[in-house]
Amino acid sequence: MPGYQHDDASDAEVARQSALYGPLAQTVRELADAVVRTEVDDAEIVAVHAELELLTARLRKQLSPGPYGVRFNSEGRSRAWGNAVVGLRNPVAPPLEVHRDPVGRAWADFHLGAAYEGPPGLVHGGVSALVLDQLLGEAAGAGGKPGMTGTLTLRYRRGTPLGDLHGEAWIDRVEGAKTYAVGHLADAGGVTVEAEGVFILPKWARAAFEDRATAPDRFE
Amino acid sequence: MPGYQHDDASDAEVARQSALYGPLAQTVRELADAVVRTEVDDAEIVAVHAELELLTARLRKQLSPGPYGVRFNSEGRSRAWGNAVVGLRNPVAPPLEVHRDPVGRAWADFHLGAAYEGPPGLVHGGVSALVLDQLLGEAAGAGGKPGMTGTLTLRYRRGTPLGDLHGEAWIDRVEGAKTYAVGHLADAGGVTVEAEGVFILPKWARAAFEDRATAPDRFE
Repeated sequence: MPGYQHDDASDAEVARQSALYGPLAQTVRELADAVVRTEVDDAEIVAVHAELELLTARLRKQLSPGPYGVRFNSEGRSRAWGNAVVGLRNPVAPPLEVHRDPVGRAWADFHLGAAYEGPPGLVHGGVSALVLDQLLGEAAGAGGKPGMTGTLTLRYRRGTPLGDLHGEAWIDRVEGAKTYAVGHLADAGGVTVEAEGVFILPKWARAAFEDRATAPDRFE
Repeated sequence: MPGYQHDDASDAEVARQSALYGPLAQTVRELADAVVRTEVDDAEIVAVHAELELLTARLRKQLSPGPYGVRFNSEGRSRAWGNAVVGLRNPVAPPLEVHRDPVGRAWADFHLGAAYEGPPGLVHGGVSALVLDQLLGEAAGAGGKPGMTGTLTLRYRRGTPLGDLHGEAWIDRVEGAKTYAVGHLADAGGVTVEAEGVFILPKWARAAFEDRATAPDRFE
């Protein structure tokens, strides 16, 4: 199982790490938003930049050689904390808090700010694709049919405004190792983007995850 | 033209702003990577977090009320500095430096690190979609046929490893207001993800941009 690591962290230890890294990542999200939008004077930009370089160097003194991966603790809880959509420790992730239903449904209410812009005032079309890929994959996993994205098709009905949004996805049908999921993004005025995707359980995973107790419930 | 602002910045002023904000955003990208990967002790995390909160507050003292948008200067140069893929000032953007050819071709060589992870060690499928949406849209714009994404279809041939990547896109054909673009991502071993998309010039833009001198060369 390449990259899926088991460690011996108890649920209490996971909660402790969450309380430590979650707020750090959240502050860096707010910092990223401020970097896009700040109008303070040049001298202040230069001064803040110099201090940020020092703080970055402090965090880089001991660095994992690779990305976070997906880690499982002794109680079977998975942590995809580096994930670009849901990662607790990842400042690039909005992050989405995804709710899941075992019938194969996943949904999230979330906010996208200035750092997710494409056309002026609108969510980047590719960011909508990013969020929907995650939600469709989570729906497949929630229904017990996790997989990696095989194909993904997006239909943009209208521009998605930056701000408060809702996304949801569900399993349409399952054919062997292929799970077909559909979903959409919406603002207060209704659906803005529709998606459908095929999620495929890789061959190595079909063998490795026959023991369902150690299977990840999602791949991304 | 909602959100497309013209200001009186000269090319020299744009270059000055670029030299000021570009390195700031780059440091925050390195900071985000460090937040995912750091293994320094808890006390150091808490100490760095406290200082980051203060620096964020300093940048937030004067803040644009909205996102960056797309700005044009007096010499017709556009700045999409808040863009989630190419934005110079956006720490969420890798950022891609996109090369364009007037026949309707766009390409970029870029690096995706730990903050863009989906499955362990691999680029998030949605991040591949994000990058390809941008490249296909840039190809359409490079060929003089800019538009907003209408549909986008991705085919994932195999996992895309985090690291050094290449992406390219080109116009396949044009039918009225619709531009059909295709493209792919590749690592050193070849193509990993293929994409095709339809880009549509909105009605308001068809009228507003009849004067091509003020038309943006891309919408996202």
